[in-house]
Amino acid sequence: MGESKHIVLTSHPPKDGEGPVNIVWGAPTAEQRGPVIGGLNDPAQRNVVGTHSGAYGLYRALAVAAGALDPVHKPDLTNTAPTQEIGPFPQWSDPDKIVSIDPYGHMVAQTFASHIEEGADIRPTIAVTRARIHLPEMREAITDGRVVPDGKVLLDSGEVSVTKAAVEPVWYLPGIANRLNVSEGDLRLSLFEHTGGMYPELVTRSDLKVFLPPIGHISVYVLGDIEAFWDPTRPLACRVHDECNGSDVFGSDICTCRPYLTHGIEECVKTAQENGAGLIVYNRKEGRALGEVTKFLVYNARKRNPGGDSAENYFGSTECVAGVQDMRFQDLMPDVFHWLGIKRIDRFVSMSNMKYDALVSQGIEIGDRVPIPDELIPADAQVEMDAKKAAGYFVDETVSNPKDLSKPKGRSLADY
Amino acid sequence: MGESKHIVLTSHPPKDGEGPVNIVWGAPTAEQRGPVIGGLNDPAQRNVVGTHSGAYGLYRALAVAAGALDPVHKPDLTNTAPTQEIGPFPQWSDPDKIVSIDPYGHMVAQTFASHIEEGADIRPTIAVTRARIHLPEMREAITDGRVVPDGKVLLDSGEVSVTKAAVEPVWYLPGIANRLNVSEGDLRLSLFEHTGGMYPELVTRSDLKVFLPPIGHISVYVLGDIEAFWDPTRPLACRVHDECNGSDVFGSDICTCRPYLTHGIEECVKTAQENGAGLIVYNRKEGRALGEVTKFLVYNARKRNPGGDSAENYFGSTECVAGVQDMRFQDLMPDVFHWLGIKRIDRFVSMSNMKYDALVSQGIEIGDRVPIPDELIPADAQVEMDAKKAAGYFVDETVSNPKDLSKPKGRSLADY
Repeated sequence: MGESKHIVLTSHPPKDGEGPVNIVWGAPTAEQRGPVIGGLNDPAQRNVVGTHSGAYGLYRALAVAAGALDPVHKPDLTNTAPTQEIGPFPQWSDPDKIVSIDPYGHMVAQTFASHIEEGADIRPTIAVTRARIHLPEMREAITDGRVVPDGKVLLDSGEVSVTKAAVEPVWYLPGIANRLNVSEGDLRLSLFEHTGGMYPELVTRSDLKVFLPPIGHISVYVLGDIEAFWDPTRPLACRVHDECNGSDVFGSDICTCRPYLTHGIEECVKTAQENGAGLIVYNRKEGRALGEVTKFLVYNARKRNPGGDSAENYFGSTECVAGVQDMRFQDLMPDVFHWLGIKRIDRFVSMSNMKYDALVSQGIEIGDRVPIPDELIPADAQVEMDAKKAAGYFVDETVSNPKDLSKPKGRSLADY
Repeated sequence: MGESKHIVLTSHPPKDGEGPVNIVWGAPTAEQRGPVIGGLNDPAQRNVVGTHSGAYGLYRALAVAAGALDPVHKPDLTNTAPTQEIGPFPQWSDPDKIVSIDPYGHMVAQTFASHIEEGADIRPTIAVTRARIHLPEMREAITDGRVVPDGKVLLDSGEVSVTKAAVEPVWYLPGIANRLNVSEGDLRLSLFEHTGGMYPELVTRSDLKVFLPPIGHISVYVLGDIEAFWDPTRPLACRVHDECNGSDVFGSDICTCRPYLTHGIEECVKTAQENGAGLIVYNRKEGRALGEVTKFLVYNARKRNPGGDSAENYFGSTECVAGVQDMRFQDLMPDVFHWLGIKRIDRFVSMSNMKYDALVSQGIEIGDRVPIPDELIPADAQVEMDAKKAAGYFVDETVSNPKDLSKPKGRSLADY
């Protein structure tokens, strides 16, 4: 705990000439933009509200409380640099294109080396590494002849070699407000009031434009040659996937999440093999960002609906419990594409109109939309699929259209 | 936004005779304990710091800002009640046994119905539902004869019928402080200061003892007959699994996470078939609660270590970047067992000494410890396994002991 016995509850803007490095969001160069300083070593240097690691910042505070972590520890970033150069791209210096990520987040140790040497506590908000991923579904796809190993993108074992990145949220509040079509003041007040008073600086420090919110992050998987992202003659397949732990990890059969994800990885493998690349964006937005408790409450309400679990009641059940159908704010989702310098997706493995509209409205071109094949829809997931199609999901001639929306197609609680 | 134009930045304790319902943590009955009121409809009724849905509370605030969610929406909890009765158990009225969960969290709509009728904004912090899970590894286990379908616990298709729960964090601060062996004041100050000033109420409102932190939750999967939890003559198998998205979802081969999880599910199936039950506890503690950005930075540091990726340097690399080896605080992990009324685990599918010690010190008996079979350890994960064994992981005669800790056994970056 140490030095600060006088507790400052909420800080106020510094006087002229004092204060931390200014962040000029969307400036032409990294040096002109300035570093995001969210570390806690020297409060006077901080130029953001909040701190690093999203929701995991709370655990860091616990570790300090428990005496396990030196409160002034600064990360030793030796050998941690990205395994793959990404950017800078022109999109990075357009303040409207990226509002929820720091595009320089993976290269801070290099780009802001002089600031770090002078003692600034600057931490990466993005990390880029290599991995080999090995999904049982990929072995099945090889056995069934749907994909063919080439020893490079896809190995005989079913392993796939990837570059992957973890991307923490860094919110530029004026940009977020703009994207959501509200005033910055209203956004700040809502974020403060409707979290029960988290970070008074959101309302007292209008001079601090950047917020590191305690929420989950994004994982990015690149299959094949990433250079294909930046060559308009080479194809790109992509799935944007929002977390669904029950399906993604445990294979719950009430939704199509994992089957659609693994289908997306298959499409990425095939496109990478065609001299292209594949991209999976995995967002921590469990249960449409309503969280898993709300999701399970909704499952019960659906299953106990007097008319049975039908497409007609699918969204209504969520709205009764949560007040909205969805809180994912796909408006912010395209940022990661601008970070990656992507302008066009040739095969978009998603039927979501919300994801499609968000990408297109941000100037990302989309070629084909790849629906989930009917045979991959699990037993209890037809209700979801019908409800989403009826609400505007993309459907082409390869996909069956929903019928009998009022008919229960989901299992009842007695049938588990 | 509406009514409150006068922004109160940090609240102060109410005067005598005023103020919200008191929470008497660990009281003998639910009514004496009192409801946790974290909803934001009537600030005067709130008896906690923070609000619901863990980190997803931020998205709710965004939804209000964007005009998508009525700020005074209260959840309609019709038909959302648990599909399975759980408790109350004697453990619930011992204030030292459960400090990070509200044991009444799943039954608030029933237990605190009169408060809700009078207008209190009380929300479930736990939801209990049914599911069918379907993992490709379970199909392989059937084909290989490791498990045998019985049409009840395990279907011919490989599907497993489960009861599952989502459990949000509810921190009783004096209990957390006690568990971590620090003073409540130091804990509160650390949580405030080392999050960059989140929730001044942590320090101004020592009368509010309960904190709803914006962190991830727990998922619980019950295989077989849950009644076996409460019958000392019937066996229980259990895996406590901390999130590792890269392996759990994508099958990254640098660690044993998904293989150990699916092995745990297999053990749960077998124990459930022996007139017992199985339990998977899945905690959102990505990368040892350091988060995925830190984890990927550490991967790079390990892979670029001049001596290669060796067990000897495994923990050191994490400590250089993060300042500690681990931030998971297993001390809090046993709470979910007390919530479930569990006193003994017959087959504990984990080699972690930290998890074992935490459970035993909380009075949970552990019978056999089940290591991951050598043949399930992925190519690049031997480094992790050796390092953990050398640091105190459980090893029996069925498991090979680590040797040559300084020898690089992990892939280098050039070999992906």
